Amino acid sequence: MDRRKFFRNGSLFTLGATLLNPFESRALLPATGEAYKNKKAKNIIFLVSDGMSSGTLNMADLYLSRKTGKGSNWLQLYKDQRVSRALMDTASANSVVTDSSAGSSAWGGGVRVNNGSLNVGPSGEKYLPIWQKFKKAGKMAGCVTTVPVTHATPAGFCVNNNSRGAQEEIAEEYHAIGFDVMMGGGNNYFSAAVRKDKKDVYAAYKAKGWQVVRNRNEMMAADNNKPLLGVFADDALPYSIDRRSSRELTDTTPTLAEMTGKAIDRMKGHKNGFVLQVEAGKVDWGAHANDIAAVLYDQVAFDEAIKVAVDFAEKDKETLVIITTDHGNANPGIIYGRDANANFDSIQNYTHTNEWILNQVKPGSTVAQVREMISSANGAPVSEENAKVILSYYDGLQKEEGLYNYKKLPFRAFAEMQKATNSVGWISMDHSADYVELAMFGPGSELLKPFVKNTDLHYLMLQAAEVENKF
Amino acid sequence: MDRRKFFRNGSLFTLGATLLNPFESRALLPATGEAYKNKKAKNIIFLVSDGMSSGTLNMADLYLSRKTGKGSNWLQLYKDQRVSRALMDTASANSVVTDSSAGSSAWGGGVRVNNGSLNVGPSGEKYLPIWQKFKKAGKMAGCVTTVPVTHATPAGFCVNNNSRGAQEEIAEEYHAIGFDVMMGGGNNYFSAAVRKDKKDVYAAYKAKGWQVVRNRNEMMAADNNKPLLGVFADDALPYSIDRRSSRELTDTTPTLAEMTGKAIDRMKGHKNGFVLQVEAGKVDWGAHANDIAAVLYDQVAFDEAIKVAVDFAEKDKETLVIITTDHGNANPGIIYGRDANANFDSIQNYTHTNEWILNQVKPGSTVAQVREMISSANGAPVSEENAKVILSYYDGLQKEEGLYNYKKLPFRAFAEMQKATNSVGWISMDHSADYVELAMFGPGSELLKPFVKNTDLHYLMLQAAEVENKF
Repeated sequence: MDRRKFFRNGSLFTLGATLLNPFESRALLPATGEAYKNKKAKNIIFLVSDGMSSGTLNMADLYLSRKTGKGSNWLQLYKDQRVSRALMDTASANSVVTDSSAGSSAWGGGVRVNNGSLNVGPSGEKYLPIWQKFKKAGKMAGCVTTVPVTHATPAGFCVNNNSRGAQEEIAEEYHAIGFDVMMGGGNNYFSAAVRKDKKDVYAAYKAKGWQVVRNRNEMMAADNNKPLLGVFADDALPYSIDRRSSRELTDTTPTLAEMTGKAIDRMKGHKNGFVLQVEAGKVDWGAHANDIAAVLYDQVAFDEAIKVAVDFAEKDKETLVIITTDHGNANPGIIYGRDANANFDSIQNYTHTNEWILNQVKPGSTVAQVREMISSANGAPVSEENAKVILSYYDGLQKEEGLYNYKKLPFRAFAEMQKATNSVGWISMDHSADYVELAMFGPGSELLKPFVKNTDLHYLMLQAAEVENKF
Repeated sequence: MDRRKFFRNGSLFTLGATLLNPFESRALLPATGEAYKNKKAKNIIFLVSDGMSSGTLNMADLYLSRKTGKGSNWLQLYKDQRVSRALMDTASANSVVTDSSAGSSAWGGGVRVNNGSLNVGPSGEKYLPIWQKFKKAGKMAGCVTTVPVTHATPAGFCVNNNSRGAQEEIAEEYHAIGFDVMMGGGNNYFSAAVRKDKKDVYAAYKAKGWQVVRNRNEMMAADNNKPLLGVFADDALPYSIDRRSSRELTDTTPTLAEMTGKAIDRMKGHKNGFVLQVEAGKVDWGAHANDIAAVLYDQVAFDEAIKVAVDFAEKDKETLVIITTDHGNANPGIIYGRDANANFDSIQNYTHTNEWILNQVKPGSTVAQVREMISSANGAPVSEENAKVILSYYDGLQKEEGLYNYKKLPFRAFAEMQKATNSVGWISMDHSADYVELAMFGPGSELLKPFVKNTDLHYLMLQAAEVENKF
């Protein structure tokens, strides 16, 4: 029997093809990437949700589906068959579990380095970072992020440094190399008032012709014909849900999607094209704190940045969009149970992160105050007993280690309490070795193989843009 | 510049194309599924690693890579670009987190039902299970599994029942419907000596012309021209690592790969083709127990069954192979830390599961005995303090709830201790809502969209096999 004819007759699906045939529209869609074969990527937008475990991607999609009836932009690209996909092995040179500097360096330098390093090998070898390669090839280059713009993930595309911690140096290195747009947090590393060496790095940028913007309105108003430095917070930007709940933060701080749009506007007119890294850096920070509101709403904010990038690329037709993460973190997931749906939906009522909540608690707070505040921020109270446990951490501040919790706040204990009402669990407060999700849209996406190492992306970007790797 | 010429010149990769160009062999490979377009899947082999979180797949691949230098067969299919892939939403009718009966019913009946049900809707609606549809279409059909063959995942392809717990009924339903090969554990549900109703269900099978085999040798020797019932354990088969460490179990119990091979041999000669479900059911059970040796080595055993299926399909050229899981479970992952590599590698020294270990401990065991036994089974001792904690659970057996831990053994506490030396963490002892990995090889694989619901596979299988959905 002729197979095409068999299915054209529509006789296969007796219960209604529209409802039950998930393949109906298949014939109308081009095979992934086919439309772009042998077309050069003039521009590249590389979007990183830092520290995004598989469950983080899934929960954001489920949250959006259940709240709005429409899932995430990321997975909509899959439903519409508009991207190529891969699993990516994220290891670093010295560990199956990478940190963000080695993760970004793998993409940035094309070689795995040890955790903590930025494109510098164990014997001091330096690998030219990819945004410098693209600058040499005549393109504009930039980064936007919700953490300090001098942090590991943007730095891994831009500089060589033995240590990711050298953020003051990195602020100067960006200036010395010369990029076209750099936006995020990090005033601590630019401001003469805060830097150890008292240098006014902002002044140095201005002297070289950069515009320096310090809040959302200034960013929106900035001239698209000049290099743009945007620094919107002392360290990282606020979490999306805390920003949304504060008029002041909403007024002063741009979203990741807004920074993405501005960065594209700044660079899109360049005749040789541009490259842009977009990082949702606090998805990682939230996972380090087992802070579901932080993780979920920042992942949603990342998803909105994806839309800005893909909408641009769709019109532009010469832009490769890469969407991925550098590593998993804490592997969150919704746990089986009678109330799993209602519990997960309760996160829709959250108005603040656990970080915000636990920073409101003070050593002298009362049990009633703690309960009142959590009730207000989570849409439901904690028990008196749990409030007492939380408060106990503020007496002498018990130890809970980690780079991302220098104040030793009881993030882990609070997440464990919330698990009973939100059904979300975590394996730890740190990165995982999981292979991660990777998607590509546009010219060059046809080069993606189904399983890649993080380093492969370095060469793929050069190949997609037809930039010879001779530097 | 002509793009093809540009790359044919090989000028892009200055550091050596073989080493650094991951796309080199791309042109030699057919686009996924292209080779099979418009070719019918005469046979379908559906492989399920039950309760396999993303991290389980990844860890098995990492374990194999680090131990043998070659990763898993599953991911090798990706590296060789031989499959199509998707993310699958695994929800049931009443929960974002499915159980295995609703998960298998989604594939089996094409409709989401409530957790606990086998192809029966909330008002008693019955959906004809897909292996019955394929039987009606003239094919042979069977299931092999490492848990009772009457368990949720095989049952979801074969029967309608309000309750997954009705395993005695299910043993009889298989007999009444008539399949061609059924192998796994479950003597408790077939044997007159154990069944509540004292029926000899084995005798009923034999009376209908079935061969009944009860150990590995009998299975190997069984006639491939008669229906085959294989029951190799009272309940589930042993975990792979415990089997490997016991001469008796190795002699008497087949591996999942061996059952897969035998089931294929039994059915491959059938003129109208066959359908076979292969389940690594104890990957799920191991995750319920946060038992890394159980999960990891049973995932590797599943991977060996993949090879058997794909090797057959490769020669056969008319077989669709589907490789996936019904849901995540416990989201295990390797956690960041200085010793992550060495810790993860220490699992290579394990000789037994935690289930085996904790069943060796008795209320009267001494601390020294517990330490000695764990040292022997994990290649490293636990501290005296930890041995005491483990022993404390045997005094009156403290509560730890769950279907899969009826003896209330301290699985969670032991896994928490092991985390310090193996770096593996878990979010819970139950299923997760994570979207899961899905791969297809062979004719019909071109029908797979990048994001599917579990129910979509029901219709995809019918379409791939060109079986009209009129029953």
